Amino acid sequence: MEPARTPTVLIMPTGFGAAGGPRQAPGCDDHRPGPTSYVRYVVGVLGRHDQVAALLPDGLALRGDPVVQFHFFHLRDIPWLAGRGYNIFSVLVPARHTAADGTVTDGLYQAVLWENLADSIVTGREQLGHPKLFARLPAPRESGGTTHLRASWDDFTFAEIEVDTGTTAGPEVLDDLATVTGAGIISHKYIPRTGSWETADADYLTLSPMPTASALRDPQPPPTATVGAGRVTFHVPTWQDMPTQFHIVATLAALEQVEPRGAVVLRGTTYLDFLDQRVLS
Amino acid sequence: MEPARTPTVLIMPTGFGAAGGPRQAPGCDDHRPGPTSYVRYVVGVLGRHDQVAALLPDGLALRGDPVVQFHFFHLRDIPWLAGRGYNIFSVLVPARHTAADGTVTDGLYQAVLWENLADSIVTGREQLGHPKLFARLPAPRESGGTTHLRASWDDFTFAEIEVDTGTTAGPEVLDDLATVTGAGIISHKYIPRTGSWETADADYLTLSPMPTASALRDPQPPPTATVGAGRVTFHVPTWQDMPTQFHIVATLAALEQVEPRGAVVLRGTTYLDFLDQRVLS
Amino acid sequence: MEPARTPTVLIMPTGFGAAGGPRQAPGCDDHRPGPTSYVRYVVGVLGRHDQVAALLPDGLALRGDPVVQFHFFHLRDIPWLAGRGYNIFSVLVPARHTAADGTVTDGLYQAVLWENLADSIVTGREQLGHPKLFARLPAPRESGGTTHLRASWDDFTFAEIEVDTGTTAGPEVLDDLATVTGAGIISHKYIPRTGSWETADADYLTLSPMPTASALRDPQPPPTATVGAGRVTFHVPTWQDMPTQFHIVATLAALEQVEPRGAVVLRGTTYLDFLDQRVLS
Amino acid sequence: MEPARTPTVLIMPTGFGAAGGPRQAPGCDDHRPGPTSYVRYVVGVLGRHDQVAALLPDGLALRGDPVVQFHFFHLRDIPWLAGRGYNIFSVLVPARHTAADGTVTDGLYQAVLWENLADSIVTGREQLGHPKLFARLPAPRESGGTTHLRASWDDFTFAEIEVDTGTTAGPEVLDDLATVTGAGIISHKYIPRTGSWETADADYLTLSPMPTASALRDPQPPPTATVGAGRVTFHVPTWQDMPTQFHIVATLAALEQVEPRGAVVLRGTTYLDFLDQRVLS
Repeated sequence: MEPARTPTVLIMPTGFGAAGGPRQAPGCDDHRPGPTSYVRYVVGVLGRHDQVAALLPDGLALRGDPVVQFHFFHLRDIPWLAGRGYNIFSVLVPARHTAADGTVTDGLYQAVLWENLADSIVTGREQLGHPKLFARLPAPRESGGTTHLRASWDDFTFAEIEVDTGTTAGPEVLDDLATVTGAGIISHKYIPRTGSWETADADYLTLSPMPTASALRDPQPPPTATVGAGRVTFHVPTWQDMPTQFHIVATLAALEQVEPRGAVVLRGTTYLDFLDQRVLS
Repeated sequence: MEPARTPTVLIMPTGFGAAGGPRQAPGCDDHRPGPTSYVRYVVGVLGRHDQVAALLPDGLALRGDPVVQFHFFHLRDIPWLAGRGYNIFSVLVPARHTAADGTVTDGLYQAVLWENLADSIVTGREQLGHPKLFARLPAPRESGGTTHLRASWDDFTFAEIEVDTGTTAGPEVLDDLATVTGAGIISHKYIPRTGSWETADADYLTLSPMPTASALRDPQPPPTATVGAGRVTFHVPTWQDMPTQFHIVATLAALEQVEPRGAVVLRGTTYLDFLDQRVLS
Repeated sequence: MEPARTPTVLIMPTGFGAAGGPRQAPGCDDHRPGPTSYVRYVVGVLGRHDQVAALLPDGLALRGDPVVQFHFFHLRDIPWLAGRGYNIFSVLVPARHTAADGTVTDGLYQAVLWENLADSIVTGREQLGHPKLFARLPAPRESGGTTHLRASWDDFTFAEIEVDTGTTAGPEVLDDLATVTGAGIISHKYIPRTGSWETADADYLTLSPMPTASALRDPQPPPTATVGAGRVTFHVPTWQDMPTQFHIVATLAALEQVEPRGAVVLRGTTYLDFLDQRVLS
Repeated sequence: MEPARTPTVLIMPTGFGAAGGPRQAPGCDDHRPGPTSYVRYVVGVLGRHDQVAALLPDGLALRGDPVVQFHFFHLRDIPWLAGRGYNIFSVLVPARHTAADGTVTDGLYQAVLWENLADSIVTGREQLGHPKLFARLPAPRESGGTTHLRASWDDFTFAEIEVDTGTTAGPEVLDDLATVTGAGIISHKYIPRTGSWETADADYLTLSPMPTASALRDPQPPPTATVGAGRVTFHVPTWQDMPTQFHIVATLAALEQVEPRGAVVLRGTTYLDFLDQRVLS
């Protein structure tokens, strides 16, 4: 596939020219554009309306049942990383945005996500507004038919996920996921103004259209899907255990898990460059 | 010391409240404010005027000889990390800023810096405008009187520093460093505007006053200082070795090292909260 | 498959009972025996007879051409590690052992191997006599059709392997590999006698039959195989870079590479428990 | 100090010559013998006689009260590692050995120890008989006057130690420690015989004389010592959490902690080469 003409996106440090990254080729002969391989674990949990709605920022309303989606992405063969991979653990809530002109956008609000690679954390935060933090996210481990996923920070394991999905799913599972996802991923980009700490350089919602424009331009085979059950457990850290993130984990651990809503595992390839990322105004 | 009243600085994700960080206490009883322990290795290298000046952004002019300072900071006992530590490797150039109203500010322009902790990279970039990237930065290693420092990314060692400083320094060394530092550290904060990739949410210079206001409020004993010789070597990665940073290392490796300008090692305690960070306009 | 009755193999510390490991189940209900998934990269290099023969211990003779095999194993889904994986980088030489009674055993002599997991290093050395050392061995990285493999110790990359194998191989490739492997892997087990440093508690050759008895009992589908070209490069460390292993890497780097002998990549599942490991006397 | 003439100690792989290690110089000009810097945290806990005695192997009897000592060593500036460092967490029990000829040796029996460096694990096990296993052992973290120490394996934190030692100790603390230590560290070296799994290549007790002969030859200043309180907590892993070590941690977690017996922190330099290690027969 011929890549779309990409703009130049600068990030700090800007003085050395544009950095290679998820949204731009490095200008090297040996760079090959192409899709990324993924395994995506989705666990749904019905929560309490008040608690789940409280995760949303101004401008978004809870959409449908208060079902929190916990996603774990195992990414490999990433072209912009010269074939390396990384993992993502994210917390998503179905939400509806209504613009000033009445335009409605349904999406999945990304309350927080963790990645195990600093480079993609930086570009994702600053370019996309994705609220990425660092965690250790070991590769999925499968034992006796159960897949084990975990997230830790400096040896404190703050989340454990178990997924048992033996049943091959029909296409309706993909349809359901697409319906919940709506137009894509909604995030709240926020960058404080240096020195004027209570004001902001950026304070707006962004939309990551799903599927991405690149995925539409180079359609990949549908992923294989299996369904079954999943469990998510958070362990509450002290401030000393996770001095920069304990407040986030404490909030997630306090979410009442009213009812499990199943798990889906998807295996496939896709494009996640978010070149068509935009402000949701 | 009673900490100064700190403002609330939000960073992504904002929906869980303010995060504990270098510029704000977590509101926990067991948090103890106080200074951070450091060992700071400074290696000076005289470069070529054209190459060193080219590292500066618009608005800054080279000040004095084109002497690039390479700093390696080994930080420990950091209160906001509950006693953890991390390391920094930075590239600094003496610069002068002249404001529209003619006000002159002398400082050290921070062309790029690497840290081995994602959490401080995120807060430093977004709050301070420090152009931080991730690298592995092992603790200093001393063998046979030489201290060895290195920086690597995914097992590619891109910088090696050797420092031999046997001679105890007089106070004039600290005075010289203070003179070169001037008003503090100058950085170029840049955050792209989502979707409008060639515009920016933030695009301004910032000043990190040195010493910090906290250091002035709670003066620490002067650091011990030793002087001697130092060497810095960069290894040029391919794009595949460091797909997000190869262009930066290539530029640093191409800097002609005309003449070594000695090394200083400082050991002491100080405050590095940069609460008085401000826009340099 | 019903696992064969396994003996109890003790290792230090012995005072807590037998440890779960590659050769024994932990006596836990949720342990599931089964095969391990692997990708195996084999690169052959014709060397100089004198240099390659010098890698062999007393009792072994070089067999056929002095072709050194460099293997990189990417292991996943290992039952005794509850589904975790690890990687192996090994250096093998075709050899022939002639026993006192004239019995001839052909095998691949394992001059050295590196693994990125301390637990399997310990059991492999002490139980099998495999000369395992620790190295960082990142997962294989593929970019533009080339697979990149590396080995490093404390950020010094001492080996880089590139493999290009686009061509699907016929069964004769597996036959050739089996012929070179012969009866299996031959190692020199050596454990010094404490305090009598120049004598030994163990000083004998061992044989790891290939395929293992477990693999014969539960035959797996043949692996997929692709063939092509491969390159191996060693970087010579100083003593300071790799104080415990520099002498090994220096020897491997000094091996003249007379002619490349192709590369094979195998993907499949197998058993590597070496329960039938035995002394070669 | 002129190092004592050191013997050649071989370890696997033997085919490349003797490896540099804790008991032998590498034959490099830039190797400098000398002492190692350490911080040693000792926490004593009175246990139940039956449980503590059960940790001892045949040939050793419990000596005095069943006080288990938990040690955490933070080692830096290690000459044989070219200035690198590593950490040790060990479990020790006061014991008495009576030889066949009636000779009595008092020492500290080392039930198990963890290190965060594979290279020293291998040499320590095979040369000394020290029952070393791998764990992540972060550098000591101090916050609000308490030092926090932890041990984890693949993100499962299995031990947490807290030490509060504000009081400077008199020389009697060092005397007490020396009395408990007796002649040194006693270990049970055990190496199974390959293929004859229930027999052994080595199965004997060893003694690591303390102080070492090197420490006696080059006396170092006495360490600074502070005393106070300490706590040790073990977390019981499932087999899946720690498939090779869960049985050890479960045993340690089951030890009833009848009464705390204080903590000591020592800071100093010493020699830990154990060149005079010997079999205890």
